[in-house]
Amino acid sequence: MKIKTDFSRAALLVIDMENGFTDSRSPFCIRGAAETVPVISDLASAFRNGGLPVFMIRRVYRNDGSDVEKTRLDSWLRGGKPCSYAAERYMNADFAEGLEPADGDYIIDKPRWSAFFGTELDIMLRRLGTDTVVICGTTTPNCIRTTCYDANSLDYDTVIVSDGTSSETPEIQSANIADMERIGAEILSSDEIREALGCIM
Amino acid sequence: MKIKTDFSRAALLVIDMENGFTDSRSPFCIRGAAETVPVISDLASAFRNGGLPVFMIRRVYRNDGSDVEKTRLDSWLRGGKPCSYAAERYMNADFAEGLEPADGDYIIDKPRWSAFFGTELDIMLRRLGTDTVVICGTTTPNCIRTTCYDANSLDYDTVIVSDGTSSETPEIQSANIADMERIGAEILSSDEIREALGCIM
Repeated sequence: MKIKTDFSRAALLVIDMENGFTDSRSPFCIRGAAETVPVISDLASAFRNGGLPVFMIRRVYRNDGSDVEKTRLDSWLRGGKPCSYAAERYMNADFAEGLEPADGDYIIDKPRWSAFFGTELDIMLRRLGTDTVVICGTTTPNCIRTTCYDANSLDYDTVIVSDGTSSETPEIQSANIADMERIGAEILSSDEIREALGCIM
Repeated sequence: MKIKTDFSRAALLVIDMENGFTDSRSPFCIRGAAETVPVISDLASAFRNGGLPVFMIRRVYRNDGSDVEKTRLDSWLRGGKPCSYAAERYMNADFAEGLEPADGDYIIDKPRWSAFFGTELDIMLRRLGTDTVVICGTTTPNCIRTTCYDANSLDYDTVIVSDGTSSETPEIQSANIADMERIGAEILSSDEIREALGCIM
């Protein structure tokens, strides 16, 4: 397959790979998210080795719930406040084991679904000269997809990592991937991306 | 003087009252900012006692400078990276002594001048039902004023604390206060605000 994306000014966006979304004991756990940890870890290493920026992006809810999405507030309260620091260790906002940020990574805390909404992500990418974002993490229909559409709106070339994203069901995953491909995102496996990165270094 | 603002759904925004801007040893120190600490501290207590939210808002620069305003980057590097955690203790991003956040305060880290730019401030105020923002901190022509204009654009009634804001010179202070008053911000002293808060409690 011919890859159309130029990765020479790309950045990796790792979204919501934190205990509250990856640990099966959390009520906000996304099925399949934990399985993507090694894939994402390898991809992040490839970006770091190539001198390309890695953004570790996560939801961190305030303990009083004042920044939890309105439609999610009830389940958040009933479920023990996942993704906050008031939550049990296995469902708190720390990054999942195996995905701890490395020196030089940028950490962004986001208050809503898209990594661009109410954050400094866009101005940081602009400063770094990034023109392409490679998006992985969870969950595909929500935070991955909203970030993809915002990236497209902001003129970034956008790549979605097919095996580095996750959804509650295969049907949700494939339907969302297809929609993103139709608006112009390139859908690539982590192997394809790592191979392309190897070519430019 | 007749006060026009209704404070029953107000929030206090304390902006940039951190060591890097208040300590005279920091190259980013704003003249007069340290003198406003007791004024702001008393005002914050009045809001807390009245059950009204206090937002402690600050600039925290990443140690690599990737989120420092472009026009300030050179002086930031030459000056020892004030308002970052790579800076000396007396010019770091911790809140100034006497203005440590209290339990229940909201801390917002902002990446640029206005407290609304690239932050979760607006969605949090909306959730809390806030319709009025009372702005204090430093420095009047930059972070106070940009926050005031954004608050006005977002339909918040806006109050500027005349003795709880600071500028490099009295002329800069008065010229900026006059401009903000002309677009409809109410300019009040901290005594006037505390008196008004006392009336509604």
